[in-house]
Parts: sequence; C-alpha cells; structure tokens
Amino acid sequence: MAISWEQSVTYSINTIYLLFSAYLVFVMQIGFAMLCAGSVRAKNAVNIMLTNVVDAVVGSISFYLFGFAFAFGHGPNSNPFIGTNFFALATIPNATYDYSFFLYQWAFAIAVAGITSGSIAERTQFSAYLVFSFFLTGFVYPVVAHWVWASDGWLSPSSSHLFLGSGAIDFAGSGVVHLVGAIAGLWGSVVEGPRVGRFDAFGKPVPLRGHNASLVVLGTFLLWFGWFGFNPGSFDKILVAYPSTSDQGNWTSIGRTAVVTTLAGSTAGIVTLFSRRLLIGHWDAIDVCNGLLGGFVAITSGCSVVEPWAAIVCGFVSAWVLIGLNMLAIKLNYDDPLEAAQLHGGCGAWGLIFTGLFAKEEFVIQAYDSGVTGVARPYGLLLGGGWSLIGAQVVELLVILGWVSVTMGPMFYALHKLKLLRITREDEVKGLDISTHGGYAYNHREEEYPQSYADYMRIRDDQ
Amino acid sequence: MAISWEQSVTYSINTIYLLFSAYLVFVMQIGFAMLCAGSVRAKNAVNIMLTNVVDAVVGSISFYLFGFAFAFGHGPNSNPFIGTNFFALATIPNATYDYSFFLYQWAFAIAVAGITSGSIAERTQFSAYLVFSFFLTGFVYPVVAHWVWASDGWLSPSSSHLFLGSGAIDFAGSGVVHLVGAIAGLWGSVVEGPRVGRFDAFGKPVPLRGHNASLVVLGTFLLWFGWFGFNPGSFDKILVAYPSTSDQGNWTSIGRTAVVTTLAGSTAGIVTLFSRRLLIGHWDAIDVCNGLLGGFVAITSGCSVVEPWAAIVCGFVSAWVLIGLNMLAIKLNYDDPLEAAQLHGGCGAWGLIFTGLFAKEEFVIQAYDSGVTGVARPYGLLLGGGWSLIGAQVVELLVILGWVSVTMGPMFYALHKLKLLRITREDEVKGLDISTHGGYAYNHREEEYPQSYADYMRIRDDQ
Amino acid sequence: MAISWEQSVTYSINTIYLLFSAYLVFVMQIGFAMLCAGSVRAKNAVNIMLTNVVDAVVGSISFYLFGFAFAFGHGPNSNPFIGTNFFALATIPNATYDYSFFLYQWAFAIAVAGITSGSIAERTQFSAYLVFSFFLTGFVYPVVAHWVWASDGWLSPSSSHLFLGSGAIDFAGSGVVHLVGAIAGLWGSVVEGPRVGRFDAFGKPVPLRGHNASLVVLGTFLLWFGWFGFNPGSFDKILVAYPSTSDQGNWTSIGRTAVVTTLAGSTAGIVTLFSRRLLIGHWDAIDVCNGLLGGFVAITSGCSVVEPWAAIVCGFVSAWVLIGLNMLAIKLNYDDPLEAAQLHGGCGAWGLIFTGLFAKEEFVIQAYDSGVTGVARPYGLLLGGGWSLIGAQVVELLVILGWVSVTMGPMFYALHKLKLLRITREDEVKGLDISTHGGYAYNHREEEYPQSYADYMRIRDDQ
Repeated sequence: MAISWEQSVTYSINTIYLLFSAYLVFVMQIGFAMLCAGSVRAKNAVNIMLTNVVDAVVGSISFYLFGFAFAFGHGPNSNPFIGTNFFALATIPNATYDYSFFLYQWAFAIAVAGITSGSIAERTQFSAYLVFSFFLTGFVYPVVAHWVWASDGWLSPSSSHLFLGSGAIDFAGSGVVHLVGAIAGLWGSVVEGPRVGRFDAFGKPVPLRGHNASLVVLGTFLLWFGWFGFNPGSFDKILVAYPSTSDQGNWTSIGRTAVVTTLAGSTAGIVTLFSRRLLIGHWDAIDVCNGLLGGFVAITSGCSVVEPWAAIVCGFVSAWVLIGLNMLAIKLNYDDPLEAAQLHGGCGAWGLIFTGLFAKEEFVIQAYDSGVTGVARPYGLLLGGGWSLIGAQVVELLVILGWVSVTMGPMFYALHKLKLLRITREDEVKGLDISTHGGYAYNHREEEYPQSYADYMRIRDDQ
Repeated sequence: MAISWEQSVTYSINTIYLLFSAYLVFVMQIGFAMLCAGSVRAKNAVNIMLTNVVDAVVGSISFYLFGFAFAFGHGPNSNPFIGTNFFALATIPNATYDYSFFLYQWAFAIAVAGITSGSIAERTQFSAYLVFSFFLTGFVYPVVAHWVWASDGWLSPSSSHLFLGSGAIDFAGSGVVHLVGAIAGLWGSVVEGPRVGRFDAFGKPVPLRGHNASLVVLGTFLLWFGWFGFNPGSFDKILVAYPSTSDQGNWTSIGRTAVVTTLAGSTAGIVTLFSRRLLIGHWDAIDVCNGLLGGFVAITSGCSVVEPWAAIVCGFVSAWVLIGLNMLAIKLNYDDPLEAAQLHGGCGAWGLIFTGLFAKEEFVIQAYDSGVTGVARPYGLLLGGGWSLIGAQVVELLVILGWVSVTMGPMFYALHKLKLLRITREDEVKGLDISTHGGYAYNHREEEYPQSYADYMRIRDDQ
Repeated sequence: MAISWEQSVTYSINTIYLLFSAYLVFVMQIGFAMLCAGSVRAKNAVNIMLTNVVDAVVGSISFYLFGFAFAFGHGPNSNPFIGTNFFALATIPNATYDYSFFLYQWAFAIAVAGITSGSIAERTQFSAYLVFSFFLTGFVYPVVAHWVWASDGWLSPSSSHLFLGSGAIDFAGSGVVHLVGAIAGLWGSVVEGPRVGRFDAFGKPVPLRGHNASLVVLGTFLLWFGWFGFNPGSFDKILVAYPSTSDQGNWTSIGRTAVVTTLAGSTAGIVTLFSRRLLIGHWDAIDVCNGLLGGFVAITSGCSVVEPWAAIVCGFVSAWVLIGLNMLAIKLNYDDPLEAAQLHGGCGAWGLIFTGLFAKEEFVIQAYDSGVTGVARPYGLLLGGGWSLIGAQVVELLVILGWVSVTMGPMFYALHKLKLLRITREDEVKGLDISTHGGYAYNHREEEYPQSYADYMRIRDDQ
C-alpha cells in the first residue's frame, strides 16, 4: 500500500525534528571534550580529548552492533530486563523504529562514557579506558536504558505493566545517562585513588587548576546548546496533538521543556555564583559553569512534566547539592578532576527525586499518554499525586546504584589488580600526553625560535 | 474543540522553525564569549567570559520574571510604551504566544548585555556588571523591543496605528538589539575612561592587543552561524503563503534573508580586508572579523526587505562606517576594547538608515502584511517609496539614543560616583582575573614542572 | 494561481530541512579554521585562519556573481559542460531553485578552497592565496559541480542522457568537493616544495608539530557536526515518498545516510587508532582525528546508496589509504601540513571507487528516481550491478584529476615564476603572522608584566 500524503508529512516533520535534535546532542560530545580538556592540566589535555573522540568512535560501533539491541530490541523474545533484537540494525527500519531514532539514541549512548572519563582523568591507562568505555557504552548503559525507556522495560512509564502503577519518569535521563556515568566514574576514581599531589600529607586539598578556562566556558556553553537537543528532543515526535486542548500538542510541551531546562540551569548558575562568592570570597567562573551544568543534569529527568516555576526550585536545590557534595568530597579525600560524580551523580539523583515531587498531572498525561483525557496517572507528591511516582523514582535511583556498582565496580577492581588501571607515578608527574600520546597538546615556542639553531644559521648565511 | 490535523501540522512546522532558530541565536552567546575573550588581554579573560555566562543566567531569570512582559505583554492594560502582561510566563501559552516564542525572544535579550560588556571590558567591577546587566536586560531593552516589535508598540510596523503611516522596520534589531547595547556601552566606557596605558601622555594610542586570535576567529564564525537564527529566524513562522504568488511564501523570504545576510557580511569583510591593507600595510585578521560583524549588524534591520544587490551596498558602506568611527575613536581618546560602540552602534545606526533607503515595496508587504496584494506601504526612499519609512527609521534611531542615554547614562554615572564602577588601578594592572575571580585563565606551566619541588623529590625518591 | 495549503506545507518542510542543513555545512568552515589553526605552528595561526575567513567572504561574492551560474545555471543556452544562467541570482527564485538551494550550494563552494589551504599552509603569500581561492571557488569547482550535479551535466546521474547508461554517483562530493580541493592543493604544494626544515639534508622528515591539539580536536568534532548537513542534507528535499513502500521516503534515506556517515568515520577512526599504535608505539590523537575525517571523506560519495555494513568496509579501507599515502608522502619528501592531499584526495578517490563497488540497487533508485519501481539502474559491481557504474566513477576520478591539473597546475606555476607564490625564507622562519598579518596570534605575557616598566613604576608611585 502506498503512503498517503498525510503520512509523508508526518514522517518528514518528525524526522527533521528528531535528526536535528540528534545533531545537537552530538554537540554535547564537543562540549564534554572542551570542558574536560580545559579542566585538566595541560600535560593531560591530549589524553582526555582522545578519550572523548574514542567514546564517539568506539561507541558508534558497539552501539550499532549490540548496544541499541540491548536497549531497544523488543520482539518475540524480548523481556523487561534486556533487549534482544536489531543487532547491527537488522530489520531496521521497521514499523517502530527508523534510522533517525537509532541516531538519536546513539548520540545519547556516546555521552555516558564521557561523564565517567572526567572522574578518572589524569591518571588512567589509555588501554583501561578503551576496555571500560566499550563495556559501559555497549552493555551497562543500554540495559538501564531498556529498563526505563523501552516500551517493555520493567520501570518504563510506557510499559503495559506499570511498576507501582506508575513507572519511573526519567524523561531524558538524569538517572539513565548522568547517574549511570557518574556511578561508574565514582568507582573508577575510588579504586584509583586521588591524583598525585591532590591532597597533602595532612589530607589538605591542593588545588590542581585546569589549564584553560576559555575551553571550560566554551565547553559549558556547547553543552547548554546540546541540551536543547537532549531534553526537548526526547519527545521524539513533535507532530502529536493533545485532543483535550484546542491548540496544544507536543510542540507546546517541547517549547516548555526548552524553557524549563533554561530556567533550571540559570537558577543553579546564579545560586552558585553568589553562594560561592560568600563561601570563597571571589566570583568563580568555573564554579558557575559547573553549577549551571548541575542544574541541567537535575532538570533532565522531569523537564517534560514540570512547570517553569518548579524548574527554579530544581535549579536552586541542585546548586546546593553540588556545593555540599564538593565539600564532602574534599573531606573524604575523594578526587574527581571534573567533579563528575558530584555533578552528574548528585544532581542526577536529585533530579529523579525532584520529578517525583513536582511532576504535574496534566503534563504527565500529555507526555506519556499523548494528552488523552480520562487517564489516571500518579504524579508529583507535593502536588498531591501520591507516593507511587516518587516510589518508582527512588527505585530507579537504587537500581542504578546497584547495577552500575556490581558491573563497573568489579571491572575497575580487576583492572586495578592486573595493574592495568593506573599509570605509574612517574608518568603521572610527566603527564599522560608525553608518556602515552607522543607529545604535549601545545607547542608555543616555535615563533620565538627557528627550527633549530643550525637551521637558523644556515638561513642567516643564505641571506 | 479538538485540533485539526492542518493546525497541528502548522504548529509543528512553525515551532520547529522557531525553536531551532532560537538555538542558533543562543550560539551567538558562545560567539560573543569567545570573541570577547580573545580580544582582551589574558589577565582579563575569565572576567569577560564570566560576564557572558552571567548575561545568560541572570538574563534568563529577569527576562522570565518581567523582561518578556515589558516587551510583549499586550492585554487589556497594555499601551504603546510598555507591556504589562505575562510576568513569569503567566497565561503562557495562549492564543498569541507559545513557549517557543518566549525562548526565541529570550535568546535575543541575553545578547544585548554581551554587546555592552565589550565596551567596558578590562576595567569594570564585577558587581557593577551584575547591576547594569540586570537593568539593561530586564528593563531598558524590553521597553525598546515593545516600541518596535510588539503589535501595540508605537513605532511598530505591525501596529494598527502606523507611526508616520509606516512604522519603523527593524526586522531583527540593528537598532533594538545592537544600537541599544552599543549606546549603553558607550556611556559606560565614557564614564569609566580608557584603560590604563591605552593612550600615552601625548594622547597617542598604544595597542593593547587581545591575547588569542584563534578565539576571535572562532567567536566570529560562531556569531555568523548564530546570525542565521537571528535574521531569518525573525520571521517567527515559515508556513505563511503569499497569496499573490504561485509558489512563494515566508520560506522564500527566509531563504533570501539568509542570503542577504551572508552577502552583506561578506562584502563588509572584503572591503575591510583591502582597505585596511591599504591603510595599515598588512592583512589584518581581527579587522576582517570586525568588518564582517559590522556588515551583519547593519543588514540586521533590513534583511527581510531588501534585494541581494542592496546587501552589497549595505556591507560596503558599513565597512567604511566602522573604519571611520575607529579612527574617530582614537582621535577622541575613546577606548572600547571590542570596538563595540563603533561596530554595533555605528553599523547598527547605518542599518536603520539603509533600510529606509533600500527597502523594496513587494518585500515590505510580504514581510509585514503576509504578501496580501493591494496594501499600500511606504518603502525605501531611493526606490521611490517616499519619506515616511526613512522618517520612522530616523525616529527609531533618535529615540533609542535618547532612551538608552537617559536610563543607562545616569546609572553608570551613579555607580561611578559611588566608586562601584571601575576597579583600582592596581587591580587593573594585575588583571581582573587574579583580583576578582581567583586566578588566571591559563596554567601552562604544569607540564614542565611537577606539583612542587618537594613533591617532585618525593616522587623521585619513591622510585 | 494561488498556492495550495499542501504546496505551502511541502515548501516549508523542505526549506527548513535544506536551510538548517546549509547552516550545518557552514559549521564545517569553522571546523576547518580550527583544525588548520591547531595543525600549524603558532607563528602561522593567524594566516591560516584568515585564509578560512577569506574563503568564506570572497567565496560568497564570487559564488553569488558567477560560481552558482557556472554550476547550476541551466536554461536555453545551457550545455553539459558549464552553466550559463542565474548570474548574480538573476531570475532566482524560479520554479526550479529557491534561495535556500543557493545558500546550501554556497556553503559547499566555500569549503573547497579550505581543503586546498591546508596543503599550501605555512609558506604561501597571502595575495597568491586570494588569487587561487577566487579562481578555484568561482570557476574550477563550479564546472565540476555542473558536470556531476546539474541536471544537464554530462556525468550527472539525473541527466536525461546517462553517461554509460549510469552517470557517476557522487552524492555529496567525495570527488566534486574533496578531490577537487585536494588536487589543487597537491599542485600548489608540489610547486612550492616543502616547508623550511621539514626534511633534513638526508631527506629524513623532521616533525613540525602543530601548536594546539585542542583546536585540532575542536575542529574535527565541528567537521563531524557539519557533515550531518553535508551528507544527509544533499537530498535537498525530505518530503519525498517512495511509492513502492508503505512507510518509506527520503526521510528514511536521510536517517540512513546520517548513520552510514557516522559508521564510516568511526570505523576509520578506530582502525587508525590501533594501527598507528602498532606502527608508532603510542596512541596518537591527531592521527585518529585525521583517520576519522578520512572516513567521512570516503563515504561522502556513496552515503545515500550503501548499507550500514558497507560503510564499515568503506571506513576500514580509507584508514589504510590514508596511512599508506602518508608513508608515501614522506618517502617522496612531499610536505602537506594538513595531510590534505592524502586525506581529501586519497580517501576521496577511494570513496568514488567504493560507491562503484557497493551501491545497492534499491537505494540508487530511491535516491535518483525517488523510489519509482520498474526503473533499471546500474549499481555496485560487487553486488552484481555490472560495470557501468564503476566505469562512470573511474571516469569522474580521471576527469577531475585532469581538469584540476590543467587549470590549477599552470596557475600555481605561473604564480611561482612571477615570484608571487612562496614567501621568503626569512619570513617563513619568522612566520607569516608577523611578516604579513601584523602580529602573532597569541599574547600571553600581559598578565606577568604591566604595560611597560615605566607605566608600572608610575602606577606604583601613585599608590
């Protein structure tokens, strides 16, 4: 049967929307690379940027071969715990999934390992990185994505058997993406221990400042830009009308999601600006960047189902979560060069809880039942929606903690025992770039000196 | 009443168009940050980047709370001078505005203070920056936006009472955005005076070169990219057919607007390249970047209503406007680290005049009356459209000069008198980054030396 | 006759798709600028970035005035070899082309000279650059584009007289864009000879490392982002249904093209990572970036007509093509600072051949006959599609080699003979930035020293 014009228009509009959103999510990879590079010392800049490139290229192949199948591979043998179809895109496109959906999910998958790479930066063997990145992107993350996002996942709010009658609402992945990446990094960092010189003999922290604040700001802004694909893009389709309204549809929710995301991040940035000014006495740009990102991480779970004013609450709290966890990290002599576990883990966890508190009934129905009236759905506890949703949110939080710990923890420990995890102390002092990657990131002397003295003399004599 | 499929398609298409345009406009914030950072000395790089981040985060909240309401808040009490509805997005979405429109306007609002930050760079107290940025983004700019862009603004070309029978055509804001930001900066810079060392004892200029040309070029290109959202995006809707044509609509005008923008900037860039080569004897990359941006600023007002050939005229003149004003600035010992007043002010003013001279009747009708034939509209003076349009353009120019001067001038003067505006001479020499922000942007020594000598010895002994 | 709603929707959807794709292609210009800047020594960074800006601004005007006409100017006098209409956008928009198509093609045109600028970097007079860039963008490239992409081009797969009954399939321009730019650069580099100090007296290569790996990674990622506009965008229209299917159309092929592009680049990146590790003993980030880009260049020709698995073959081979050609270049003492001839030329040529081997019949019909069943078309040799397609591919490869050589080779040689091509040895040692552009890209000393010693003392005394 041929395609009707209406169907063609619908496919075209939704594909444009999803593909350009996927491209924006891909920009987050650039953002991570720049943020990470600027936040480490110059001697490790090449290393951390290469890990970001590797996340993308290795992630592409592993997600194509099996990651996508584990996450979204429903079919006759599928089950609530892991997908079993569409390995290497077999039988894609089909009635459910087109290539554009794969690309969108691919852009998410490659982001996860980037989070983790921040926690273990400046001291990890590159080959260990290859192993864990492949394992995390290809298996650990897709399984969680299946639970929460696949239509047959056991925690999915789109499942036909709603967990606690609700399912967990983790719209764009405060838990599925950020918390997963953060817990992995937490274990890696704990197993490795702090960088040389991070804490002195008395356990007092020594600042190991990143080498380039311009790259940090560039990376932060690029992440903000990319988040417009990450959060609003997670609606997948824009051409979905809400039958109970006279002019609303996913286009309305999508716009609101972008606004809500912006407000949460901005609030967290402002709160961080002033509170850090009070705490440390200066206006710290790096802190504001991290605060901003923490706000984005926190709102990622509930962005589709909360009012703009709630986003301000979300951002306000997430700033303090990050500040508090950073203080705790120092107290515990925990060293995470990018604050990744605190930021993506702490604010990600808060985001799951926040959604359970502030999700609005109308928006939950619109986002998960296409706005069909008459559906009953648990919603935010503080808005009178009962304990089911927040219960499911807490369960998601706990199972992610558990699952990532039992998979990634032993993996890091095994690499450690096999002496494959951490570089030598000498290499760490010299930097990963010279020891592992053939040279430093920057060569700024050229303009002052010609190629070599001999060369210079030859040139001089020539003239 | 439920939504028809045709309405859903229309909303979806226009929302995609407006949201992705908003995201592009947001990229201009990244562009400004990189351009500004590269154009100042390394010791102030963190400061100026933080101001850009602050514009975005503070602007988000102030524009959400009241800026948007002042600009677009029509309603029962609304008047031609200031909007009075939709504070904190109350009653949004409604029949007129959806969230996507707010987001698009938000991206514009946060750009204004970024322009101003260039003029007062390298010598302004950070707390003064917070004050003026909040005031400018939340009040001064929205009021002008109301006059020119809101349907009930007294200068608006969409008003039911057209000023001079025409209204001013400032399509994407050569005046509303660029001139406003520039005049604010001009007053700030005049009140503060030049940077230490910018002019010697005889009034001769001493070049204070920016620290990183790569960031300048990156910023310029990102601004170009963002301008594709700024100018073509200002049509708001793409699905609007022109009934008098057989295949044209906003989609045609939108494409032409992108082309016209490109040609104006490119012409200005080329003219600057060759004329500066003649004037100063070398091919100057920074000049070309600024010339290019000047062309974009100038075409921003008339981009929707002029032919491509006219864009070349626009760019040609704007290059000379910028060159001339830069010479004048030196003669007057006016110091503007980013040339922001000259560039956004001079080329912005020229853009308003240019539109009054070259706007084409057909395009004016298409852009402002959806191409309905039979409408009579004043258009460009040189194309035979009479004096009404150019009159309105001059009035917009003058009222912006006046309004921004009477609001921002006294504000800067008061801050100055209260000793809250300029940093101390000592801090200026050391740089804002170390005095206000806790450290410099760059730490490039790490690779050569280990953490500390003692640490190094300890490591050596360990092995 | 007025426009129907259906037509308006179709125009709007396709214009959104094409314009935003054009904007993405424009990002490649930013990517090239950053990649090139980072890959050269700091003393030439301003120079190469300015060439990228100049490509864009000069290219805009020359492509507007005549380049577009040479490439796509069909009409009564048009012929298979060169277009003859639409100079300075005369009679645009018309039934065939709207402004958005011009903008999309403009973004392609300005990319070509950027490729060439890499090969001749760090030693070419800026005025020579202006000459060749204008000639290449305005004439040499458009003619090839006409042959392969215009509906009346002699090699075009959309022509009514299909060459060899097939026409060449060079969907987004492995040949038309990348090979053209590379052959031009090859001649330039050969005529100029290697940079001072690149090979020692015994012909052994001396590494002249680029000055900033962060810029290289940033540029590579931005190019990846832009390639999502370059390859999938080349469908021009998204709202085209395939009548022989029940739910497929260009939206399906566009998604697949994005996936295929990603897989080819990623595979090439991975293969480069491991093979260079084996060959040189460390994990080299710059090599991976170049390998990745080589994979993208190779898949650019066939991206619309191959299966995802074939993209992996494409990327695998392209990695080895690049590695092999880089070895050969060293053996021949050929110096190309960006590996541009090897990368864009070698992988571009491989891409043309690859398409002739792996193009799938169904996809060829969909891409070139809008999926109308019953059409017979030659396709990939290895899939049983006969010798016609691969024959046409080889012919495209050869005619590009010939055409670019007979046009650009003599041009470079003439400039060389007139002593207008290469800078003096002294200037090369000092760097182009100080000799030609008025100063270096970076000024990092400011924070350590005040404006001048006298100034410093004055300040001290003031306090």
